[in-house]
Amino acid sequence: MYEELFSPTVQHTLDLIGIFVFAISGALLAVRKNFDVFGIAVLAEVTALGGGLFRDLVIGAVPPAAFTDLGYFVTPLLATVLVFFLHPHVERLQTGVNIFDAAGLGLFCVAGTTKAYDYGLGLTASACLGLTTAVGGGVLRDVLANEVPSLLRWDRDLYAVPAIVGATMVALCIRYEALTPFTSALAVVTAFVLRLLALRFHWRAPRAWNRRSTVVEGE
Amino acid sequence: MYEELFSPTVQHTLDLIGIFVFAISGALLAVRKNFDVFGIAVLAEVTALGGGLFRDLVIGAVPPAAFTDLGYFVTPLLATVLVFFLHPHVERLQTGVNIFDAAGLGLFCVAGTTKAYDYGLGLTASACLGLTTAVGGGVLRDVLANEVPSLLRWDRDLYAVPAIVGATMVALCIRYEALTPFTSALAVVTAFVLRLLALRFHWRAPRAWNRRSTVVEGE
Amino acid sequence: MYEELFSPTVQHTLDLIGIFVFAISGALLAVRKNFDVFGIAVLAEVTALGGGLFRDLVIGAVPPAAFTDLGYFVTPLLATVLVFFLHPHVERLQTGVNIFDAAGLGLFCVAGTTKAYDYGLGLTASACLGLTTAVGGGVLRDVLANEVPSLLRWDRDLYAVPAIVGATMVALCIRYEALTPFTSALAVVTAFVLRLLALRFHWRAPRAWNRRSTVVEGE
Repeated sequence: MYEELFSPTVQHTLDLIGIFVFAISGALLAVRKNFDVFGIAVLAEVTALGGGLFRDLVIGAVPPAAFTDLGYFVTPLLATVLVFFLHPHVERLQTGVNIFDAAGLGLFCVAGTTKAYDYGLGLTASACLGLTTAVGGGVLRDVLANEVPSLLRWDRDLYAVPAIVGATMVALCIRYEALTPFTSALAVVTAFVLRLLALRFHWRAPRAWNRRSTVVEGE
Repeated sequence: MYEELFSPTVQHTLDLIGIFVFAISGALLAVRKNFDVFGIAVLAEVTALGGGLFRDLVIGAVPPAAFTDLGYFVTPLLATVLVFFLHPHVERLQTGVNIFDAAGLGLFCVAGTTKAYDYGLGLTASACLGLTTAVGGGVLRDVLANEVPSLLRWDRDLYAVPAIVGATMVALCIRYEALTPFTSALAVVTAFVLRLLALRFHWRAPRAWNRRSTVVEGE
Repeated sequence: MYEELFSPTVQHTLDLIGIFVFAISGALLAVRKNFDVFGIAVLAEVTALGGGLFRDLVIGAVPPAAFTDLGYFVTPLLATVLVFFLHPHVERLQTGVNIFDAAGLGLFCVAGTTKAYDYGLGLTASACLGLTTAVGGGVLRDVLANEVPSLLRWDRDLYAVPAIVGATMVALCIRYEALTPFTSALAVVTAFVLRLLALRFHWRAPRAWNRRSTVVEGE
């Protein structure tokens, strides 16, 4: 089982960290949308657990980990409490949140790809589910907040690409039987660093061919 | 099987009542959004069956009850016909709709928690799924209607709390081996009455700490 | 297995055609919403595979076909590339896109109904899932793009009805043991032609009774 590359405790701790930072991003959006405390908790849970929940439904791992591991459920509630009382301070730490969110992105795309492969999916499908695990929670967050998912918008720094790179690295390592704790960690770090660079240098993806030439000036 | 606490006929009738009143709320929103008759039917079905469908996918009860029990499918269509022809009258009965919707909330949070536990989930996860069963259909309704889910908005009367209380009561009864038709009914009634009180006295949940002090006046 | 009515190659080719045209519609909406290239790809994938993915989760066919058949995953990417470079030309071919989309609607409602029945669902539930397979991707597309699903809007030409007719024809054929490649093809063609007629003559579904008389003039 590739999923147990790291010792269970290490893996579990990494998962909880990823869940926590994603929950923070959900809770902060909820505060900005002026939701009440239950809305904050719901958005924190959905952002943190949505991607993994979708992955588990697709691979048939029911009940999903989100509903069997109490820590997965409680962690977003801690993030809710933190944001509820301290949100101006948390917002001021936006850079810190971005860094943690990038870490969550790296951890989830690698863990998602590995788990999907363990459940018998092909390499391409596993990488695809790894990507979905990493970005799915954020998409659900934006849909529930009635906003266009920031994943899809052209005016946001690259988010999908780092996760695609990380997931692809894992798939290639599996293909060439080179998946070890070290190469897994390397994939996590690569996705993490790519996301940080995208934030730092405002890397963006192109829009449709003709649109770029005609629309940009008119706006 | 806790799920069969009540005689099957009683349980089934209660389910259909819950489905019917949720479908009415979906159909009314569809009329307000100016949808056509198929849009009304879709929103009625989704509101009535969405929460239970999600629960069944999570616990692995496939195909979900929504697709195996013809009555579950037909009931929202009856609600559609009713609203289609009589919607000004139904709207005038908004108080009646609210009361029935509160009843649906109570019934679904208890039935959802019980069914999830029967499928082997832990007590916290079962209560959480009971809550999801009760409020999930309404969230899907609002997402499809392209509105911010009223569950999340601070300016709506408490909706999640009554369901949380009802689901928690069931989980505690299971924990202390006290789940009987009587305690189940008590949980339903508690959630029902709490929701009615929230409507009557406009109970609301707090928003994030600093937001309350600074934003309320400015708006 | 009714699903193998046609030779596997024919069935697979028809599926890929349906997936391709649905992906085109998703990609075009993404361009109109000004998404970047990854947003275009995501919307193409979701539109093309969303309906079938939901059906497979409901009937317990996990992992869903969308994740086991590489062709299903790659086809929307081809549509993305096409739309990315040629979208003004593709838009000019809107009539062509509409015709192909109508074909996809016919193919998916028939294939969805047949597959659901093969997995043991009742006739009504199978027809219902066939409808969901055909229209589900488009609904997800519109939700992700933060628009009211065009399926629900009264000011769009009939879309659900052709799929309902096609799915019902398949269910009736199964009921009377008359499902053959010929009757299946007849159901596809019927849904296809009905959708084209709806587009040509702007057939629309009625809105709620009183709304029609009072609102239309006022708008």
